[in-house]
Amino acid sequence: MDPLLDTTWLHTLRLIFEVAATAAFALSGVLAAARKRLDAVGVCVVAFVAAFGGGTLRDLLLDQRPFFWVRHTEFIWGILALCMGAMLFMRQRHFEPTERAMLLPDAIGLGLFAAVGVDAALAAGLPFIVGVMMGVTTGVFGGVLRDVLCNEVPQAFSDHRPYALCAFAGGWADIGLRQLDAPAWMALLACVLVTAGLRGLALWRNWALPAWRV
Amino acid sequence: MDPLLDTTWLHTLRLIFEVAATAAFALSGVLAAARKRLDAVGVCVVAFVAAFGGGTLRDLLLDQRPFFWVRHTEFIWGILALCMGAMLFMRQRHFEPTERAMLLPDAIGLGLFAAVGVDAALAAGLPFIVGVMMGVTTGVFGGVLRDVLCNEVPQAFSDHRPYALCAFAGGWADIGLRQLDAPAWMALLACVLVTAGLRGLALWRNWALPAWRV
Amino acid sequence: MDPLLDTTWLHTLRLIFEVAATAAFALSGVLAAARKRLDAVGVCVVAFVAAFGGGTLRDLLLDQRPFFWVRHTEFIWGILALCMGAMLFMRQRHFEPTERAMLLPDAIGLGLFAAVGVDAALAAGLPFIVGVMMGVTTGVFGGVLRDVLCNEVPQAFSDHRPYALCAFAGGWADIGLRQLDAPAWMALLACVLVTAGLRGLALWRNWALPAWRV
Repeated sequence: MDPLLDTTWLHTLRLIFEVAATAAFALSGVLAAARKRLDAVGVCVVAFVAAFGGGTLRDLLLDQRPFFWVRHTEFIWGILALCMGAMLFMRQRHFEPTERAMLLPDAIGLGLFAAVGVDAALAAGLPFIVGVMMGVTTGVFGGVLRDVLCNEVPQAFSDHRPYALCAFAGGWADIGLRQLDAPAWMALLACVLVTAGLRGLALWRNWALPAWRV
Repeated sequence: MDPLLDTTWLHTLRLIFEVAATAAFALSGVLAAARKRLDAVGVCVVAFVAAFGGGTLRDLLLDQRPFFWVRHTEFIWGILALCMGAMLFMRQRHFEPTERAMLLPDAIGLGLFAAVGVDAALAAGLPFIVGVMMGVTTGVFGGVLRDVLCNEVPQAFSDHRPYALCAFAGGWADIGLRQLDAPAWMALLACVLVTAGLRGLALWRNWALPAWRV
Repeated sequence: MDPLLDTTWLHTLRLIFEVAATAAFALSGVLAAARKRLDAVGVCVVAFVAAFGGGTLRDLLLDQRPFFWVRHTEFIWGILALCMGAMLFMRQRHFEPTERAMLLPDAIGLGLFAAVGVDAALAAGLPFIVGVMMGVTTGVFGGVLRDVLCNEVPQAFSDHRPYALCAFAGGWADIGLRQLDAPAWMALLACVLVTAGLRGLALWRNWALPAWRV
């Protein structure tokens, strides 16, 4: 990701967030694969797709290279290690506590990935609405591709809990602040705070998305 | 899409067809999402993928940018409005009549999208058979991706009614006329007429594709 | 594919292997489509995706054009002919013998496709681990996309028989020999031998991948 931030401790903070978010996304893939009784290869591929599928799809659509995981191959090794560790030590009784523990890093990751997607699209000179769509794609389509590979209806489209919509709002917050000439780190932070805040509120207050009325 | 036509009323006619076809494709996504009880986010994403997935996949394969929906962001807003309207006003008893009413614009859209796909591939200097494949991809893969996201076997591969095959024939008609140095609008029109005509005939006469004999 | 080999008989041998491997991959698509009772269009599309999906996805990720099937359109016609022949002459009782007969060309194809993928990635200057991933992608994702289109959990992720892992090992053998400045044909051959050899051993000795322990 790009030099949005220039103070060292902000850099470190962002790196910590990135690692935590990527791990949370990869773990969601590990759990989905485990529930489907996939083998070790399936676990690794689904974890990888859950973590990097959204950003890779965005870069394919924006025609940008190299991908994040090509620039940072240490993340590939990290995900392989995470998968092996999970297969060695994680048992079915750990699935639910893991998911609960991942809610926070996952929400932060959703906001962070959305901000990175908006940033990449606007840097490519695309219109605002496309920027927001690319932000949502970055945050959400890793999980969508994970569910497609596991032969499930994507959770982001069917569980009626606001998820993509939080990233959508966060993306507009990001763009709004940029229009006000706020510094890049402030737009990034706003996107993360709005996205994760809305996601937290939605989970806490049990908000539901409009469903189809029969 | 490109300046295939130069008279104003032909332009207007083409725009009307494009809007009707895109709406028909998007509505097929809305209905598929509604049948799967997806939430509002799922309805919008599946409608968008049904409408623009085929052309976007073609442009990815041909390495062309910008996508249609990046050049015409008003179509993105239009699909969002369509989805909201459908969720507010459409009920289960409207599904079948809507599908019947969409058969004609869908058939015209299949032909139109196929012609646009053939045109894009030939303009990129690709062989005829690849041009026809790109035409079929443009017309058919929106629906295929819609069904994959809804966790269904793609209808275009399994309902034994000629659909992709009509676009295949239309694509060859397009290429044949171009080889005879016919003007671009005539090749486009031939593709639409052959595709939609065959599709209409197939539905009317209840033609079935060859199935696997056990 | 590239001029890895320069002696004529090696060229001929490689061409024979390529045709056999592509036919084996396409036939795996034909059988998957037949088991799902897809129509003729579905059979052709799934066969095509099984044969060329892996290499096409790799070229999309590496941003390389033209695709193999654009340079060699005779392969497109060949697959269409194969599908028609299969629909005319193949019956359910032939499915299992066909699958058994395809085990060898499929294993060779896995190794060959992996070598081609490693080669393409390293030629693009990518790191080793990405090269191996691209090799595995080339060999395995045709089958994955085939299963996604057929609405099945991908066999490569769920049948607990080493497949992708053999290509993974073959890819490292390829890279190892290149690092030792071995000629290109030797690295290619090593990749095919290691991959197909491991795959044969795994099938013969009934090796199973680690599964999730509940």
